[in-house]
Amino acid sequence: MTADLAARVHQALLARGETVGCAESLTGGALADLLSGTPGASATFAGGIVSYATRVKRDVLGVTAAQVVSADCASQMAAGAKRLLGVDWALATTGVAGPEKQDDKPVGTVYVGVAGPRGVQVLRLTLDGDRAAIRAGACRSALEALLDELG
Amino acid sequence: MTADLAARVHQALLARGETVGCAESLTGGALADLLSGTPGASATFAGGIVSYATRVKRDVLGVTAAQVVSADCASQMAAGAKRLLGVDWALATTGVAGPEKQDDKPVGTVYVGVAGPRGVQVLRLTLDGDRAAIRAGACRSALEALLDELG
Repeated sequence: MTADLAARVHQALLARGETVGCAESLTGGALADLLSGTPGASATFAGGIVSYATRVKRDVLGVTAAQVVSADCASQMAAGAKRLLGVDWALATTGVAGPEKQDDKPVGTVYVGVAGPRGVQVLRLTLDGDRAAIRAGACRSALEALLDELG
Repeated sequence: MTADLAARVHQALLARGETVGCAESLTGGALADLLSGTPGASATFAGGIVSYATRVKRDVLGVTAAQVVSADCASQMAAGAKRLLGVDWALATTGVAGPEKQDDKPVGTVYVGVAGPRGVQVLRLTLDGDRAAIRAGACRSALEALLDELG
């Protein structure tokens, strides 16, 4: 089902002649994997940064937010990826997949950033389930958020 | 099975106090997804660059190789990721997942780069199967190559 969402994102971007990239923390590459999974993806997907370590968020994406699990961090990751990758749209994910809480935020706390032509918006989610379910839910929410923007 | 390989990589790196990152083209984020999938992965996995577009390989990773599907490109991607991510080991994947051939190389042609303390080595593979099987096979080969290095 998430692969279908990625295919719909690809088709919507293709119709608009636009491109997408991503910056991932808790999803760890799974979102890029989905965006690149559709045959012909190279026409719309430029690439992504998996900024798992805090120093990669800072040094590669230019994140200055004090807390990794925060709306500010998701916003700066999305904006940084859009700039670095030279894309029209960038999706960012940060949050707590577990098993341990982080920055005093409970497992399942997720922020999704969407950077586009009109700026950056951030969604805050609370997801249930284990580590794999939370990562998958974050990917699905990011793709749905972009589809909403693409109309 | 590939998740087990990733868990073994994590354990081997943990025992040595070393870190890993990656640079991916045809695997599109799937290798980072595996490396970050093990609980506690943040102790050994710093992050990755999904350089799907040629300009991302060039601008973010510093690749100058004329052909994307080549040993030179895999080598430069691995070295670029090691430098950019500040890790002890970096894995790189480039090749043709299909459905179309690329750079006159047939579907299934894959190069895996491994950058480590003693330099960079490149493996050339010819993988069978469809797009998903070739991407999965490239991930597995990259993890096995690193496990070989880690002894």
